[in-house]
Amino acid sequence: MSITPLQKRIPVAVLGATGMVGQRFIDLLRDHPWFEIVALAASEQHGGRPYHEAARWRLPNSEMPAAVAQLPVFACRPDALPNVKIVFSALPAEAAGEVELAFARAGVAVFSNAKNYRMAADVPLLIPEVNADHSAALIQQRKQRGWSGCLITNANCSVTPLVMALKPLQQQFGVRKVMVTTMQAISGAGYPGLPSYDILDNVIPYIGGEEEKMEIEARKMLGTWEEGHGFVDAPIVVSAHCNRVATREGHLETVSVELERAVRPEEIIAAWERYVPEPQQLKLPTAPERALLYRREIDRPQTLRDRDAGNGMTATIGRLRPCPILSYKFVVLGHNTIRGAAGGSILNAELCVSKGLIG
Amino acid sequence: MSITPLQKRIPVAVLGATGMVGQRFIDLLRDHPWFEIVALAASEQHGGRPYHEAARWRLPNSEMPAAVAQLPVFACRPDALPNVKIVFSALPAEAAGEVELAFARAGVAVFSNAKNYRMAADVPLLIPEVNADHSAALIQQRKQRGWSGCLITNANCSVTPLVMALKPLQQQFGVRKVMVTTMQAISGAGYPGLPSYDILDNVIPYIGGEEEKMEIEARKMLGTWEEGHGFVDAPIVVSAHCNRVATREGHLETVSVELERAVRPEEIIAAWERYVPEPQQLKLPTAPERALLYRREIDRPQTLRDRDAGNGMTATIGRLRPCPILSYKFVVLGHNTIRGAAGGSILNAELCVSKGLIG
Amino acid sequence: MSITPLQKRIPVAVLGATGMVGQRFIDLLRDHPWFEIVALAASEQHGGRPYHEAARWRLPNSEMPAAVAQLPVFACRPDALPNVKIVFSALPAEAAGEVELAFARAGVAVFSNAKNYRMAADVPLLIPEVNADHSAALIQQRKQRGWSGCLITNANCSVTPLVMALKPLQQQFGVRKVMVTTMQAISGAGYPGLPSYDILDNVIPYIGGEEEKMEIEARKMLGTWEEGHGFVDAPIVVSAHCNRVATREGHLETVSVELERAVRPEEIIAAWERYVPEPQQLKLPTAPERALLYRREIDRPQTLRDRDAGNGMTATIGRLRPCPILSYKFVVLGHNTIRGAAGGSILNAELCVSKGLIG
Amino acid sequence: MSITPLQKRIPVAVLGATGMVGQRFIDLLRDHPWFEIVALAASEQHGGRPYHEAARWRLPNSEMPAAVAQLPVFACRPDALPNVKIVFSALPAEAAGEVELAFARAGVAVFSNAKNYRMAADVPLLIPEVNADHSAALIQQRKQRGWSGCLITNANCSVTPLVMALKPLQQQFGVRKVMVTTMQAISGAGYPGLPSYDILDNVIPYIGGEEEKMEIEARKMLGTWEEGHGFVDAPIVVSAHCNRVATREGHLETVSVELERAVRPEEIIAAWERYVPEPQQLKLPTAPERALLYRREIDRPQTLRDRDAGNGMTATIGRLRPCPILSYKFVVLGHNTIRGAAGGSILNAELCVSKGLIG
Repeated sequence: MSITPLQKRIPVAVLGATGMVGQRFIDLLRDHPWFEIVALAASEQHGGRPYHEAARWRLPNSEMPAAVAQLPVFACRPDALPNVKIVFSALPAEAAGEVELAFARAGVAVFSNAKNYRMAADVPLLIPEVNADHSAALIQQRKQRGWSGCLITNANCSVTPLVMALKPLQQQFGVRKVMVTTMQAISGAGYPGLPSYDILDNVIPYIGGEEEKMEIEARKMLGTWEEGHGFVDAPIVVSAHCNRVATREGHLETVSVELERAVRPEEIIAAWERYVPEPQQLKLPTAPERALLYRREIDRPQTLRDRDAGNGMTATIGRLRPCPILSYKFVVLGHNTIRGAAGGSILNAELCVSKGLIG
Repeated sequence: MSITPLQKRIPVAVLGATGMVGQRFIDLLRDHPWFEIVALAASEQHGGRPYHEAARWRLPNSEMPAAVAQLPVFACRPDALPNVKIVFSALPAEAAGEVELAFARAGVAVFSNAKNYRMAADVPLLIPEVNADHSAALIQQRKQRGWSGCLITNANCSVTPLVMALKPLQQQFGVRKVMVTTMQAISGAGYPGLPSYDILDNVIPYIGGEEEKMEIEARKMLGTWEEGHGFVDAPIVVSAHCNRVATREGHLETVSVELERAVRPEEIIAAWERYVPEPQQLKLPTAPERALLYRREIDRPQTLRDRDAGNGMTATIGRLRPCPILSYKFVVLGHNTIRGAAGGSILNAELCVSKGLIG
Repeated sequence: MSITPLQKRIPVAVLGATGMVGQRFIDLLRDHPWFEIVALAASEQHGGRPYHEAARWRLPNSEMPAAVAQLPVFACRPDALPNVKIVFSALPAEAAGEVELAFARAGVAVFSNAKNYRMAADVPLLIPEVNADHSAALIQQRKQRGWSGCLITNANCSVTPLVMALKPLQQQFGVRKVMVTTMQAISGAGYPGLPSYDILDNVIPYIGGEEEKMEIEARKMLGTWEEGHGFVDAPIVVSAHCNRVATREGHLETVSVELERAVRPEEIIAAWERYVPEPQQLKLPTAPERALLYRREIDRPQTLRDRDAGNGMTATIGRLRPCPILSYKFVVLGHNTIRGAAGGSILNAELCVSKGLIG
Repeated sequence: MSITPLQKRIPVAVLGATGMVGQRFIDLLRDHPWFEIVALAASEQHGGRPYHEAARWRLPNSEMPAAVAQLPVFACRPDALPNVKIVFSALPAEAAGEVELAFARAGVAVFSNAKNYRMAADVPLLIPEVNADHSAALIQQRKQRGWSGCLITNANCSVTPLVMALKPLQQQFGVRKVMVTTMQAISGAGYPGLPSYDILDNVIPYIGGEEEKMEIEARKMLGTWEEGHGFVDAPIVVSAHCNRVATREGHLETVSVELERAVRPEEIIAAWERYVPEPQQLKLPTAPERALLYRREIDRPQTLRDRDAGNGMTATIGRLRPCPILSYKFVVLGHNTIRGAAGGSILNAELCVSKGLIG
């Protein structure tokens, strides 16, 4: 890396800075060695009021960073945030559409959490541990769209730990079918999000659009980017059942998977334990030491105990056992607002910077 | 029915009367038209102390029935409970083994919640809405074992709503494969059961022995009783993922099912909505008006909202939609300590009485 | 009572019918012997759409009453609800102000849950078990305001069980000072109300305006109505600490009270246990058998176990013991959306009808 | 300080190492600059099995320290733990009595969480920020008892943040009366502790012995140690109401206090904000930067958001306002298993070491 942390950090902004994911961005970017928040924006017009007036800090066990508290909150327009090279967008889908395009057009690298462009033919849907090579699509994206900036999306928070666990299995054994049931945390619904009266002592077996996202996003991410051609979906069938449960953070998922060939359990566990993808090889700042952690206790991973593994960036797996219908069953857990949202986007940005795709 | 409610109710006892399921038995049997609790027993020796001293009532929104409060609590031995025709056993597996056999030998009809004899070759594993005909095994059971009493078990609390939902599908369309993920309430672990420190803000993706029970009990219950031969398992493959979540009562389950033939969604819903099995035909006292309730709202059934349907005896189904891997997906919910435990046993007893198999 | 249930029930409407308290009104009025819901209204314009389209039913373990589901939902204007004699208002304070006055002017008896007019000099703040005689203020109210209708308010949901417990103590021993700390359920914040992310695994020691309401409303309700003069506050000092906790329903309160004279604990318990105020004497339909229930168990009342006592209309008390600072300490619990809101209003209406103050 | 971290850390043991507070000790002592865990013991006989076999690690977001995992777990006898200078005792009261005395007799400095000797005439009940001078009682303790070791206790977890908040008020304004209501976390009940079925969607207004402990321990700690005479209680009357709520960690308390003289709110806040007691002056390793943190937001402290302030060692205060009965009301929060248990004991040990009272 040619970027030296202290001398010239890249100036970045957060769009949607007042919401739950926006606050995660701000929290995760404090003391970031490569990126420095120089501007904030929110979907509503705060007219340049300082952040500490515009937002109430909602993350438990954390205070609003002092450096950010005084930053003015502007509207989400490129001209309002002039000196920014990267924007991290935590905008909701309703607001993200035009705004993100405007920034990309204006020469800014946009890392988006919104669903709007995830399935677009020239937009990478990126998890650096899974499909770092998809970032190559940015070259075509810029050419086709005539942008000086670019647009990179990260995946739905539920599908993220799933594809992280599937990737080494796909590489080594082939994956044909995936049946997944999620038990998703309330923070996945944003803020104010889920009314407490709806979820205390309850499970809600429905999250609008979530099952469809899991089924299609997994195929794109586990597929290939073919130069001059485009994204080719992986020939994997995914069937998802999505549920909301009363946990604060962490999406836990039970998975049955059909592999292309017979394989012993130890081979699968070894595939997970020996998986050292690009972010770990590059030692990107936000990359956890281990992308995947397999726990051998009979009752792990558990949402509460394991969601913060690798500072919330590790996907924790457990309970591998044969499935009487498909090949194997297991459990996987990922932190939804860190790995599945803000942390994932930051890692995407780090990957693109380290590959020379930005700036 | 020849039994007239007030003139001669059948004298019954509850074994394991102090625990969670024991209390449910006592609660559900208050004012029962056919059965009258005349004796109580518990695994520990309470030396005949009155029930209100031996037990703390734990059911919310309910008081210990006055009639029962004064009953002495004896040891679980037939000679201690002399005039009883039926015992409802809420004993844990460790205690149930010998005790239940002793009562059956002594001429008592034993309705057990324990797992010990569920898979025995001559013991019905009974859900009246699913396999009422399995009760015929009692004749062979008595002959073979030389008992004047008998032993009937009810199923694991997780598998119960599942097989209730599957039965009409099996009858009309054939069922080949069933993938199920459960989100089970804390009351399923008994009392004191699950420490609060383990489950608040958590999901535990493991319940010892539960997945195996679901996989084998479903096949027995959906199988047949063949006179002179025995139970024949249904040729159905079940794969279960069992999880504990922070709900008080109600096991919610996401299900994918492979049917033997192509069928339209409306046919499946109709199969559920038109299902009127024996308990509903006989109008047994504890049978809910509808064994199965299909809800058309996009986000139902929900644990909190639907667990008490039919006084906790109805299995509520929702969200039928195609499954990309098997044929269809849906959600089913059952009350674990009522339908899946005490209420199920009482309904079993009502069925056996109404069929003349007892007394 | 001259009103015979079936021949001529009084036609009533619910204002704010789509919200949490509005739904409680509808739920509690199903099969009411005196009142019949003939019209619904909500603060937003639903343009006469049927209730089942305008509202999602949110009460667990209950379905929208079929009779109400088809009623059109109109705007909250007297001319939109022409044949109504009583309206139960579940409107929020922002909406209640003008609307409730308009109905009272138009000849309708308005029973309001809003705070707007609770402290008005000619408006009864009524709990029939506490200050039934305050209803006499309606005569002056009508005269002064020239209304053919009238306006009766019920108290804040936190102060309600407190003053119910204090009333017999005041009558028999005199009450000087009351220190109270509340642990209030999430439903008290309405719907959507409290975000789940704010309250799961949390206590929030602040509820806007609640402490002030408790301190002033208690004095009015425990005070007197003096004909020709007005309401005279009781000379009682109340100090309140209000907290939100993660319970669904039921406000639990710890209380220290200073009495005017020395008294033994048994006298206090007797005062509670022998308290049979007007609604119980009149056997009003919604009056619980016991206004106050004192539980002798060492750890009761508990929110979950006791909130539904008397169908949610009984205030449950426990743990009476000496206070080293004031005279005695105890715990009291009331159901906030039943006794503290909709049920309280209905009982108010029943009292006024039975006293001939309406119609 | 003459102790240099790396050259000669003091060898310590944890008694009751397998339980909840024992695990907190182990967690907090990892990398401690002065203390090194060299031995573990538990009330049950584990026969020298390694800790990772004897205990299941229960702290979320933390792993069992590798160094400790291999330590054998012995019985709680001095001869089983020969080279230890300090023991931190997390033993329950039933087990602590004889064991702690035996260690003190054997020359070990015992820092106990148990209630057994808290009120003993020559045993300090120590919170270094409150009554560091009480440690002087150790000299008399050793002389009277003929011990080469010593015994120091820390306070009940509920009273700890209360007296921390009261101490500067007592010093500057005098404190006469304190009314406190607690909302205590489930971890305060140990492990397995509170059954989840008892607390989910519930508040339990009773914790055995807790109110008495708060009332007497506060007076001892806010009292004085008079050389040659003994402990003299502060002339303060405390009245406590203790409740259990569904939070994981953190005891939140509402407080009304009567001061000896009139004082303005700003003076009180200043007293808290300027409070820099001995541990902060000495910069003891476990002392938080601020013993007391006053938050000015209208709705703080909150259990979830503030319990980890100062790594769980800071008491957070908020909502100071006049009390109509006593002088002022406020809210205080402390982490019950860190500040109120293991962390408090460790800080006590640091204080005693720094004062030369040990070793």
